[in-house]
Amino acid sequence: MRTIKIAFHGANAANFRQGFETLIDPQHHIVDLSDALDAPGERAHYASAEVIVGVALNRGLPTPRNVRLFHAPAAGTDAIDTALLPSGAVLCNCFGHEQAIAEYVMAALLQRHVPLAQADADLRQQRWTWWAGRPSALRSELGTQTLGLLGFGHIAQAILARAKAFGMRTTVANRSPVADERVAQAFTLEQLPAFMASADAIVVSLPLTAQTTGIVGAEALAAMRPGALILNVGRGPVIDEQALFDALSQRRIGGAVIDTWYRYPTPGQAECTPSSPGLDFASLPNLLMTPHMSGWTTGTVRRRQETIAENIRRWIDGAPLMNRV
Amino acid sequence: MRTIKIAFHGANAANFRQGFETLIDPQHHIVDLSDALDAPGERAHYASAEVIVGVALNRGLPTPRNVRLFHAPAAGTDAIDTALLPSGAVLCNCFGHEQAIAEYVMAALLQRHVPLAQADADLRQQRWTWWAGRPSALRSELGTQTLGLLGFGHIAQAILARAKAFGMRTTVANRSPVADERVAQAFTLEQLPAFMASADAIVVSLPLTAQTTGIVGAEALAAMRPGALILNVGRGPVIDEQALFDALSQRRIGGAVIDTWYRYPTPGQAECTPSSPGLDFASLPNLLMTPHMSGWTTGTVRRRQETIAENIRRWIDGAPLMNRV
Repeated sequence: MRTIKIAFHGANAANFRQGFETLIDPQHHIVDLSDALDAPGERAHYASAEVIVGVALNRGLPTPRNVRLFHAPAAGTDAIDTALLPSGAVLCNCFGHEQAIAEYVMAALLQRHVPLAQADADLRQQRWTWWAGRPSALRSELGTQTLGLLGFGHIAQAILARAKAFGMRTTVANRSPVADERVAQAFTLEQLPAFMASADAIVVSLPLTAQTTGIVGAEALAAMRPGALILNVGRGPVIDEQALFDALSQRRIGGAVIDTWYRYPTPGQAECTPSSPGLDFASLPNLLMTPHMSGWTTGTVRRRQETIAENIRRWIDGAPLMNRV
Repeated sequence: MRTIKIAFHGANAANFRQGFETLIDPQHHIVDLSDALDAPGERAHYASAEVIVGVALNRGLPTPRNVRLFHAPAAGTDAIDTALLPSGAVLCNCFGHEQAIAEYVMAALLQRHVPLAQADADLRQQRWTWWAGRPSALRSELGTQTLGLLGFGHIAQAILARAKAFGMRTTVANRSPVADERVAQAFTLEQLPAFMASADAIVVSLPLTAQTTGIVGAEALAAMRPGALILNVGRGPVIDEQALFDALSQRRIGGAVIDTWYRYPTPGQAECTPSSPGLDFASLPNLLMTPHMSGWTTGTVRRRQETIAENIRRWIDGAPLMNRV
């Protein structure tokens, strides 16, 4: 049996290390390397590894001379400069986050309909505010609403499956045509205003490209139903930042749930606002703001570990790899 | 076309009155009566109505001499003394709350996995506590868990459909045998401890009968997985009150979500604790306590209105009625 060296490079890859040895044949050699590769022997391991699991490859790192399979444990590979890979090396990425993101989205949607925290606080004070039978206690129901999915990839389809189980009607807007019998109405991206008007909640899961940057601007937001909600679990700048702030602060839409942002912490600045100076999203009461967390679960880690382990097996066997970038 | 008199009797029935006229033929005569029937003409209307929509019939009320269809706008008919109905009159009830209760249950389950409120509070302070990639930010996933359904009626089946869309494994314990391909393992009520040990969250939706009163006692609770959650959306006393309090206060289970209780407000006392004296559930941090609210949505009201209207049509046409009690 052939033995290969597998390097887990950096803090992000380390999230996928625990228990990984149980998913592959025991003779393989796994090494855990720091981001900076500055401990003794780390650079030699990096240069000799046939498989590298990591999120970054750039000119500040040694050349991974021996690598044949470079595996990102994430969907994004922007920080991997493929020009630095030896010829014949393959780059793969991982998904497996769509279940987690769908849980985040359904939790955020349901939270607006079921006032659990308020009911609990009241009943602890012996107040039966939300008791069934009281007209003022009647709540709305998610299942009677329409959900609009902007983008129709893995994430949107995972959300769709859950939304349908609740009885929701669903509409879609996507670059390529969508033919899915569960979808009541499909729009192209050119029909964005009509799509935005079609639903009580819009979930944005588009990737960021030249075409999608700012695609949800003032016009699209103005087309939304007055009480409707917009959620972003794709990439922040797909929604125009100023237009979103204006729609929320002027209460022209019902609210927003934003997980993907316009500014992120850097190694030099661990705390920061997620938006541009002058746009104080933290002051808005009709916004639920979270720090790009929606996909980050133990289930996502496990599914990505399984993808990486399966691709290592396939590479050793000479079989076609999954998720080639 | 025949014209009938339909009486909506009391404050509970009044919840189902708005828009009801649009669901039936316009020539019918709808009257709205107070609980006490003490306004002028109310007793005469009550005595002459062929259809009464209401939740109570007792010796304190006049005899509904003319009623042919007595329709509860709720599932429970305990407060309707059928001995007081004229011979030949039919009693029907309504469901249509299972979608609402399933939303409550899924919201409560998801809330334990997705820390939306904490993440929002932190990010408003520029803290990215739950940012993806941070080991300490990894959250658990509902979809990888097992859900145990104690009881398998309308409510449990609505929860099952939603839980399966999330990928959950499900087990069931029920009086009559369950053969449902979506259920991984089915138990009888005699196998309750094994059932209780089979899941990460147990949802109780059993009705209250002599057999089910206190069926979830100290033994059943002791059989639960250490971190597991118990939810009650059936009837409070199905879970033994003292045993539940002990399991929670001694942290022998992960927590509870309780919507159905042991004591309720009365006309003379609008505020009260939902439990017996000496058992201070409001002091427990591992409990989400809500005031019997899970089924109370605009969707439930609409579905029940549709059931009542359809039964009135069927009764006029001499067709078989739905939901005869």
